[in-house]
Parts: sequence; structure tokens; C-alpha cells
Amino acid sequence: MIILDGKQTSKDIRQELAEAVTERKKNGKKIPHLAAVLIGNDGGSQTYVSAKVKACEAIGFESTLIRHDDSITEEELLKLVEKLNNDDKIDGFIVQLPLPNHIDEKKITLAIDPKKDVDGFHPENLGNMVLDLPGFLPATPAGIIELLKRYDIETSGKNCVVVGRSNIVGMPVSIMLGRNTKPGNCTVTLTHSRTQNLEEICKNADILIAAIGKPLFIKENMVKQGAVVIDVGTTRVTDNSRKKGFRLRGDVDFDNVAEKCSFITPVPGGVGPMTIASLMMNTLRAMELNGK
Amino acid sequence: MIILDGKQTSKDIRQELAEAVTERKKNGKKIPHLAAVLIGNDGGSQTYVSAKVKACEAIGFESTLIRHDDSITEEELLKLVEKLNNDDKIDGFIVQLPLPNHIDEKKITLAIDPKKDVDGFHPENLGNMVLDLPGFLPATPAGIIELLKRYDIETSGKNCVVVGRSNIVGMPVSIMLGRNTKPGNCTVTLTHSRTQNLEEICKNADILIAAIGKPLFIKENMVKQGAVVIDVGTTRVTDNSRKKGFRLRGDVDFDNVAEKCSFITPVPGGVGPMTIASLMMNTLRAMELNGK
Repeated sequence: MIILDGKQTSKDIRQELAEAVTERKKNGKKIPHLAAVLIGNDGGSQTYVSAKVKACEAIGFESTLIRHDDSITEEELLKLVEKLNNDDKIDGFIVQLPLPNHIDEKKITLAIDPKKDVDGFHPENLGNMVLDLPGFLPATPAGIIELLKRYDIETSGKNCVVVGRSNIVGMPVSIMLGRNTKPGNCTVTLTHSRTQNLEEICKNADILIAAIGKPLFIKENMVKQGAVVIDVGTTRVTDNSRKKGFRLRGDVDFDNVAEKCSFITPVPGGVGPMTIASLMMNTLRAMELNGK
Repeated sequence: MIILDGKQTSKDIRQELAEAVTERKKNGKKIPHLAAVLIGNDGGSQTYVSAKVKACEAIGFESTLIRHDDSITEEELLKLVEKLNNDDKIDGFIVQLPLPNHIDEKKITLAIDPKKDVDGFHPENLGNMVLDLPGFLPATPAGIIELLKRYDIETSGKNCVVVGRSNIVGMPVSIMLGRNTKPGNCTVTLTHSRTQNLEEICKNADILIAAIGKPLFIKENMVKQGAVVIDVGTTRVTDNSRKKGFRLRGDVDFDNVAEKCSFITPVPGGVGPMTIASLMMNTLRAMELNGK
């Protein structure tokens, strides 16, 4: 059994990106600049955004963090998005979700210029993904693909089962792995809350991707001997033995599943760090796609 | 076994659309106007386009057929697309594929204003489909969904296997049936040329959709007793007993498969007529979406 070390792989990617930045500086080219918009005081969101900003700094990207409290109106946020769309210094930006209830997340997502949408959430980018056209792949699925690629895991002709059909992970990763690409060419089954015989379906997976946000949902009896298991779940569960008062739990019962796997991602240190690496890669790409 | 009669269902839809046109006329509203662009002399394309134009006329839509021979340049075609994008009289238009080799089909598809893209091929519309946002669904998959809906076939929780991952049928229908919609909520497996154990996978399908363009590919041993079988294939095979010299063959070995099915589409008269009905529905919708 081999651990898919997202932390190390993410480090490798950041190292490569740092070198690309140095090279660009040397040639007098623009340095990638990511902006992140954070609304309100959600603990998880703060952690994610600050990790993204830190990652930018560590590799020499420029970054701008824009914070607003919950009182921002939808109209004000739309204006801010418009400003970032038109700001030539900013190559890509993200608006951290979830947003407060009085703001329509879809409206905000649609307002972001697809050319700066480094989260890859805009319909135009999802459509480009379906058609395998240039654009931005959603960061978490792209991170999963990158991990499979860097560990040289064969995907062609493999049965892949994705558990969970969210717009930002399950649905796009199921599309990406079914395309005629490398990694790709899997026979993908996308499962969800209405799926019957989930256990049986999962047990047939050569590659199993769990993205439902239910801690320890995937048990030993749902995993085939020798499977590749990718755990996207990162739920905070109370743990008073920790200083923070919680620990992160994946969707996979790692302790009992791991020994059956050929490869498995840990939580934390698996898919999580890869998401940030993808975001950085998308930001560099944004600049290149926009001819800078 | 019940035949899913696409011809009759398409007639019903056209009748409904004709009534909607009459109603619009009565209220002094604009009549839907579809333009079709046909390049070259491909026999199949001519047949399809003329069927679309005829369908428009029959239900009271306005229609414009624009023909050019193969000598048209890519630039000229792009200009024509631009003209149609900006023509307020035209609510929706299609550029019939395939195009001559010297023209980049992707470029043309991307040039069509998503708001007039009644074929539903533009990435923005595919992305809207993924996210279940308003837009145009690709005509053939939308026709399949409409057929399932009108025959009141339960799809929630069913295993659906799609054979073939084309951008215009297999891939989008697999996405549409996996969404949390009605029809929808299937557990969808998308199969293709790299799939292993296809027979076994198909045999597990409650709903089997064949969209590969290989005549009679789906045999009796690949179909589960009681399955719903949707045949998207329409390949012309030589048949000298026919006046035209050919007949249309589906991807399903209908004669041997039909008796195992709960529902099955014939070829011709199944999915084909539904595609045109979808196109008409999209054209009416284009007008409504654009506030006319």
C-alpha cells in the first residue's frame, strides 16, 4: 500500500511554480497575482483563504486579500467582482464560498470573468472541461488528476466510482476521468444519495473517489482489494485532545481500509494540499492564457 | 414491451408548439424564428436540415435556410455567424455539422452567441447544463429526457449505462441523467471504447442508452430483462430493396433485443424525431429567455 502524499506532491508543484516565477522575473515578465475575497468570519473559510494567500507568498506570487464583514450587500459584492474583472494587475481571483445567506452564490459565480475564474466554477469553464477545451479546471478535481498523474497511476479502462455529485468535486471529477485524456479514459460511475446498492458498486471500483463530506462513510466492505482510494472529505469533528478542539476526518475509514488499497490518500495531507496547488497552477495559467 | 414512439411524441410536442405560436400571434407577440446554415452538399446534412426547416413551417415558426457551397472560407462563415448573432429577427440558429475540413468546427461553435445556440453545443450552455442553470440543453439528449418524461418512466435510483461519450449525445446525456432533476437521479455509468467488460456493465443497466453509431452493436446478451433501451444510432446501411438505396440502422439489434425490454425506441421513429422537437422547443425558449 502506497500513501498518495498530497503534502509532498503539493510542495513539489510549488517548488516548480517558484522556479517559474524566478524565471519570469529574470525575463522581466509579470508575476502572477491572485486575489482572494473573504466575506464574514467562518472559521473554515478563514483557514482556507489564509492557506491560499500564504501559498502565494511562499512561491513568489503576488496576492491580495480582500475582507468584508457579513454586512456587505449583494450589489456591493458584484461591484467588487466587476472591479477585479477589470483590474489588469489581478490575473485570477476567487470568492471564498460559502457566502452569507442574503447573497446569491450563483449570481456571484456567474459575474466572475471566466478568464480570471481560477476556481473553475463558472459555467463556461465547466463547459470547456466537458469539451476538453482550454479553460480552468475546478481546483479540487484538478488536484486529484494531478496526484494520479504524478504517481503514474494507470486510469485507462479502469472502473472508477465517484461517491457524491457536488458541483465542485464529484460531478466535475466524474466528467474529467471519463474523457479521452491522460489521466482519464476511466469507465466512470457517478453515485449519490439516490443510488441503490452503493456497497456493491463501490466494491467494483478500481479507483474510488469519496466526496460526500460524511466522516468514515466508506468502510472496508465497500473497497476492492488493490483499489486506488481518493478521499476528498475534510469534516471537522470534535476532538478535545487537540489544541484546536477538533480534528479533520475524511470520508474513508482509513484505519480499516488502507491495507486493502494499492494507493490511498490520507486526511489531512492528501487531496487538501493538492487543491491549493491547483489554484496556484490555474493562476499561473490565467496569466499565460491572457497573454501576459 | 412498449415502443417509445418518438414520431408520435414529437407530433404531440409540435402540436403544443403550434398552439403556443397561435397564442402568441393572437397576443401580437413575435413568432419564433429559426435560421439554419448548411454548408456543402452532404446528403445526410441536407436531409436533416430540410427536416428542421419543414418542421418550423409546419408549426408556424418562421425559418431561414442559408446555404453555401464548400468554397466558403472560415472567415466568411464566422462573419455569417456574427451577422446572425446580431440579427434581432433571428431567435436561434444552427450551423449544421459536419463542416468542410478547412473550417474549424470548434471555432464556429464558440462563435455562436450562447443565447441563440439552440443546438446547445456552446461550452457556456454545457456548463449551465452541468450546474442545472437556465440555458439550452443539447437537442438529442434533451429529446431523450423528454421521451422518458412523457412515458412517465421512473429514473430515480435506476442504473443507467450510456454507451458512447460523444460531445453531442453520450457525454451530455450521462450528465443530465445523473443530476438531481426529474427525469434524472440515475446512477450513471458512461462507457466508451476503453471500457472493459462492456457486456457485463450493460447487462446491469435498468436504462441503457446506445450512442456509438455502430449498427446492431447492442445484442440480446447485453440487455437485462425489463430494461428501458434508448437507441440513438442512425447509420445508413446499403439496402438495394429500398428506393433510396439505404436504410437506417440503430445501434441496437432491435429484432432480438426488443422482447426483453420494458420500453424500447425504434430506429427510425424513436430518438430522431425527438431531436427535431427539442430544437423547436429550444427555439421557442430562446425567444422567451431573451425576453421577447
